[in-house]
Amino acid sequence: MSKYSRLALSTTCAGFGILLGRYYERNNGQYRDTSIENLGKSSLTANDFFKDNESFGKNQAPISDTVRSFLPVSTVYASTQISRPPNRLQEILTFGVPSFDPLRPFENHVVLYDRRNRVPHWVFEHLKKEHVEKNDKVDRKSSDFTEDQAIHPFFRSTNADYKRSGYDRGHMAAASNHRHSQKAMDDTFCLSNIAPQVGKGFNRDVWNDLEKYVRALARKHRNVYVCTGPLYLPRLEPDGKVYIKYEVIGKNNVSVPTHFFKVIVMETDKGEFEMNSFVIPNQSFPENTPLKNFLVPVETIERASGFLLFDGVPKHRLKTINGKKV
Amino acid sequence: MSKYSRLALSTTCAGFGILLGRYYERNNGQYRDTSIENLGKSSLTANDFFKDNESFGKNQAPISDTVRSFLPVSTVYASTQISRPPNRLQEILTFGVPSFDPLRPFENHVVLYDRRNRVPHWVFEHLKKEHVEKNDKVDRKSSDFTEDQAIHPFFRSTNADYKRSGYDRGHMAAASNHRHSQKAMDDTFCLSNIAPQVGKGFNRDVWNDLEKYVRALARKHRNVYVCTGPLYLPRLEPDGKVYIKYEVIGKNNVSVPTHFFKVIVMETDKGEFEMNSFVIPNQSFPENTPLKNFLVPVETIERASGFLLFDGVPKHRLKTINGKKV
Repeated sequence: MSKYSRLALSTTCAGFGILLGRYYERNNGQYRDTSIENLGKSSLTANDFFKDNESFGKNQAPISDTVRSFLPVSTVYASTQISRPPNRLQEILTFGVPSFDPLRPFENHVVLYDRRNRVPHWVFEHLKKEHVEKNDKVDRKSSDFTEDQAIHPFFRSTNADYKRSGYDRGHMAAASNHRHSQKAMDDTFCLSNIAPQVGKGFNRDVWNDLEKYVRALARKHRNVYVCTGPLYLPRLEPDGKVYIKYEVIGKNNVSVPTHFFKVIVMETDKGEFEMNSFVIPNQSFPENTPLKNFLVPVETIERASGFLLFDGVPKHRLKTINGKKV
Repeated sequence: MSKYSRLALSTTCAGFGILLGRYYERNNGQYRDTSIENLGKSSLTANDFFKDNESFGKNQAPISDTVRSFLPVSTVYASTQISRPPNRLQEILTFGVPSFDPLRPFENHVVLYDRRNRVPHWVFEHLKKEHVEKNDKVDRKSSDFTEDQAIHPFFRSTNADYKRSGYDRGHMAAASNHRHSQKAMDDTFCLSNIAPQVGKGFNRDVWNDLEKYVRALARKHRNVYVCTGPLYLPRLEPDGKVYIKYEVIGKNNVSVPTHFFKVIVMETDKGEFEMNSFVIPNQSFPENTPLKNFLVPVETIERASGFLLFDGVPKHRLKTINGKKV
């Protein structure tokens, strides 16, 4: 869609129909379609009605279509697209899959892609020391941003969408969290893992600080689980009403989130859990802005994002949330 | 969340952390957490590393959690929440389930609920003559708007959210499309099937006209399949950038869609298909505004909504789209 066709649609939607030569006449509150000859005569008789009722439940569409239709789409995706060994997926998703859209399993992270906004809903990582340690054999300079061919072209974000938008292609799963394998690092450059981020003062600064903090945790804890994603937060405007408003960029209307969240669950050597959750506005911050400024209750993120996060963490072993004893 | 806490979060997110007493010190680009005593000493040795690798794939969480985590959420919903006989569901969903969030099957319609926006993603109906014909035993006055207890309270829209918002509780599956059964009609008043609509000039006028047109089609065709839902369409603003902006109402931030779509697939007695697709802005229109003004290519709806619509209609039997021969 060009800017102009988007505009045309978003203002009145008029005009489309005029060219199509179809007319509906209003007739005592009922519509009579004058463009199809046999629409005026109802062919249903009492016999037809009962015959029809008997065939209830039988289906005229090909079986394969019917079966496909009945299955929740994520099941279809699960059976056709998950090629990783399930145990790795299980590990990454140990504490719950928060729903929606196509699940995109990569070598070392999992994306739930938001087809409406052309960015992730969430990205899950499971990090250990070996994933984040320096490794001379793996180089992020050899990774390219790639479009995700598994996403239908209607919903796929492209490099062209980001070009000259003024925004960075911001990683949800950070590239440097996946230093153990060139393939795993390359995977993080797939645009399904990317959302538009303010560059200076955000992606290259405070957000980068948060990513380094995650790696420090991964070096020190037995297991670190991370969920990262965008938020579109409401704001009270001068007219006294509350609005959600965000920019969209490129031909494919890629959404520019107003904020980003990162929720981190650490498992200690004692098998206890600690959770820290951050929300940072997608805007420039002064250098060395302390990350503690961005700690928020995880419930705030859950209500705004539409899914529960790390709901499967065993409650009796969760010892701290945002540094506070539970 | 109150308007004030929403505001606090949406402006800087500062403040939350300050009370929580946790500090991170920046140290050569690494973070040292000073609040947890044993965080300084890494307990991983080479032996631990290999030991750890051997246990890869084993999971410390209870099995039930692990299994639940690995399953796509809609599968979990499918196994626990679908209590209707599958053949009825199959019929309603003959031409494809377009993905996402909790699937809410009701007696005669199916909702995919959008937990982030607290309104449906889409609502599917399969209509025949007997569903739409006048029936003195079924009365919409005895139907009440009810909150959907199957939706987690964080994501559930409530009657209080709509109260004094200035918007109608607008049906996606129209109440009068389900006149064959009081239960089926009551089901359409469940708030999972509802989104905020402008009352005068929209819900009570042009949208109502569209619903009457659907019933006219259902009286005349063998089968009518309808998919209805909200859209949030982008708009070019004076700064030259394109934005998506919509109001949210009530304590639960229920989204007020900018537009609504309705896609109708009719099966004729010859087993052929016709498709008409409409998008109407959520605003007041003069009485008797012709519905043909709102015909749009279905692709426009698909790109904006994030899902493909009626993708399973057999291509060789689809004869017209928006009145135009295919």
